Amino acid sequence: MDDLVALCKRRGFIFQSHEIYGGLQGLYDYGPLGVELKNNLKQSWWSSMVYDRDDVEGLDASILTHPNVLKYSGHEDTFTDPLVDCKSCGLRFREDQVPEQCKGEELTEPREFNLMFKTNVGPIDDGSSYAYLRPETAQQIFTNFKNIIDSTSRTLPFGIAQIGKAFRNEITPRNFIFRVREFEQMELEFFVHPGSDEEWHKKWVESRKQWWVDQGIESSKISLLNVTGDDLAHYSKSTIDLMYEFPHGLEELEGIANRTDFDLGSHSKNQDELDIKSTTTPNNSSNAKLAVKDITTNKLIVPYVIEPSAGVDRGVLAILNEAYTVEKLDDGKERVVLAFKPHLAPIKAAVIPLKKNNNDLVLKAIELKNSLQKLRIGRVVVENTGNIGKNYRKHDEIGTPVCITVDFDTLDKGAVTVRDRDTMQQVTMDIKKVPEHFKDLFLS
Amino acid sequence: MDDLVALCKRRGFIFQSHEIYGGLQGLYDYGPLGVELKNNLKQSWWSSMVYDRDDVEGLDASILTHPNVLKYSGHEDTFTDPLVDCKSCGLRFREDQVPEQCKGEELTEPREFNLMFKTNVGPIDDGSSYAYLRPETAQQIFTNFKNIIDSTSRTLPFGIAQIGKAFRNEITPRNFIFRVREFEQMELEFFVHPGSDEEWHKKWVESRKQWWVDQGIESSKISLLNVTGDDLAHYSKSTIDLMYEFPHGLEELEGIANRTDFDLGSHSKNQDELDIKSTTTPNNSSNAKLAVKDITTNKLIVPYVIEPSAGVDRGVLAILNEAYTVEKLDDGKERVVLAFKPHLAPIKAAVIPLKKNNNDLVLKAIELKNSLQKLRIGRVVVENTGNIGKNYRKHDEIGTPVCITVDFDTLDKGAVTVRDRDTMQQVTMDIKKVPEHFKDLFLS
Repeated sequence: MDDLVALCKRRGFIFQSHEIYGGLQGLYDYGPLGVELKNNLKQSWWSSMVYDRDDVEGLDASILTHPNVLKYSGHEDTFTDPLVDCKSCGLRFREDQVPEQCKGEELTEPREFNLMFKTNVGPIDDGSSYAYLRPETAQQIFTNFKNIIDSTSRTLPFGIAQIGKAFRNEITPRNFIFRVREFEQMELEFFVHPGSDEEWHKKWVESRKQWWVDQGIESSKISLLNVTGDDLAHYSKSTIDLMYEFPHGLEELEGIANRTDFDLGSHSKNQDELDIKSTTTPNNSSNAKLAVKDITTNKLIVPYVIEPSAGVDRGVLAILNEAYTVEKLDDGKERVVLAFKPHLAPIKAAVIPLKKNNNDLVLKAIELKNSLQKLRIGRVVVENTGNIGKNYRKHDEIGTPVCITVDFDTLDKGAVTVRDRDTMQQVTMDIKKVPEHFKDLFLS
Repeated sequence: MDDLVALCKRRGFIFQSHEIYGGLQGLYDYGPLGVELKNNLKQSWWSSMVYDRDDVEGLDASILTHPNVLKYSGHEDTFTDPLVDCKSCGLRFREDQVPEQCKGEELTEPREFNLMFKTNVGPIDDGSSYAYLRPETAQQIFTNFKNIIDSTSRTLPFGIAQIGKAFRNEITPRNFIFRVREFEQMELEFFVHPGSDEEWHKKWVESRKQWWVDQGIESSKISLLNVTGDDLAHYSKSTIDLMYEFPHGLEELEGIANRTDFDLGSHSKNQDELDIKSTTTPNNSSNAKLAVKDITTNKLIVPYVIEPSAGVDRGVLAILNEAYTVEKLDDGKERVVLAFKPHLAPIKAAVIPLKKNNNDLVLKAIELKNSLQKLRIGRVVVENTGNIGKNYRKHDEIGTPVCITVDFDTLDKGAVTVRDRDTMQQVTMDIKKVPEHFKDLFLS
């Protein structure tokens, strides 16, 4: 983990937030390479959910959330951690994380501490008008259920996908970007007929595991955990966690929950007219019934929901961890490679002029860069330092799949040297063939 | 404006947030089409800034912001609106927005109200530990200046680009998505040698105006406003606003400010060693000098900053407004068209089987959809309702550039009908040629 964290900072993947002011715990910033890696992962999820399927719509809702949403969702009451104060040192800890030196001391009784961030809205700060920073993206998918049905004419089964920031006031943020106070989620709420929920739950578990494998996670490092007992959320009929061997231990990468009709039911008015199976709190604040009409019986049905919910940041951490490789070379030296899948690589190709002060070479390199950039496959850079060996090492370490060197043969005969990150093999290629080679690598 | 707001809701571009709970003022959600439009606009900006140029790096920093950042930036002191209370009705207003019926009443003296949202961080809520939701994305670009220089070896001039949410506790949110409490910004901070700042400022004003024209904004509807007097921010040497004729009036679409060395200077320690030209507050909290070494004189220089800062949401509003067209047809009827530039269209193509219950037609349509989707140009849908005329009208209204109809000629002879949104012309085309036609439309 330490090597990875150091590489992330040195190469511009991830920095601690507010470092010049001593940092703020549990917050991280994505640098020039990190933002590309993260965006590529999000884009890959969005493509697989919204573009490649024909049964999912997208959404991007507000982060500031009306208190009623989080009242009826159950978050105001149950989204808490138990805290204790040490009567000797006066510090506050999560009950299960009291440090050794306090364990002999007297502790207060545990009190429930809500993990949601709260903020005042509007000009009067007397507690009458506030909002929460959403603790998950899911809730506003439910509150928009009717808007999306009305504007798209969707029928069951169908899903709504959302990517965005969520916030949790963690007592003890830890393990780099694994457990943080501000993070991003990729959540799908997939609405199905009651009765077909178990079958869809199984399908989504398989499909989500395969997706992570497609992102470069070794299949053998993902195990399925059937969540039971106190760990199972009160609304869930069944939850399967995809567990990954992170550097700090086996932890959840994504959870796939069968949330039943709890969410749509909880946010509905006149619940007694709706044949809701789960236990919900009567709702006098909502103005809508979140239900669909069964075309055969003409009755209202509250759909069941299957939720594959993944953390973007822990996804990035898993992918960095999988990609990080230290290879022994024939000459006894080592090289560090981030062996990303091409579609996730922050930089798709580096074009390197043999000499940095030769105008013809540099212009030719820029021309080639522009022709590759125009394909809209991702970021392509020109490396104008004149040190090819150093450039190769750098681009191995940041995971660039191809380096293309422009030399005097390019000017004379139109030949460039294309080097592959993983095999380190170099081939001479006609410059006109480079765009096709490039497309084959990224679009196949 | 009303027609546009209605279309946005009906077709799934933009919904009011928390509608089922009566809404929360100044917050909006982007529906299935809105999220694509907004993402396409952001992607277009990112491409033009980070990919097409060779002198800009990207960043994605945290929303929660350390109080010191906003202390030294000046936001804690100056990011305020003057508020008055009406002594008769007890309500609170912005001083310049007191409604008619209160103007005769007695008002309190104006008090400065800070527009930043604040939230408690950590388990103890006694005011000792808090953060702000960033009121602009710019500040964390400055605080990461050294991290980015160190990880990329950039030299002047170069820029750092960021897209992300920002929050302002507006007293009176208004004009749909124009003035809201939660919004997105696309900001570039471009660092230059002091002395070259005026020239770069001019270049960026021209380049930014052209970019908006490339997004489909009529050039004649953008005017330049030289911001002067009280409207000019205290740190700015000169600001040019790109003003656009919004439905509700002429307002700022983007501001391009010459922020001098105020920002990097303000966040630096030991400012007296740095020859800072602007007036900054001494900073004992920062642990860094945000400066670069001049290779000829070996002295530290604090770069000047040119900042093109655009609002994503008001950009979306401008683009919707420009695209919205009501055309009289030859038969006396009207059609509504959102004439988006192809790269911004939420849906790139609709594939329509002539009959919805014919399996062969539907499978052929899905096959064609998949082949277009694979090109990674954006969302392609299959419209399986069997009503071609209705589908054409719908896709005109949501701005889909092409509709492709699959009929029995497709099964027999491989011929599809391709209809152009703007000309409404239909041409018969070999299905094998559709991907090339599609690429020409979007990648040229």
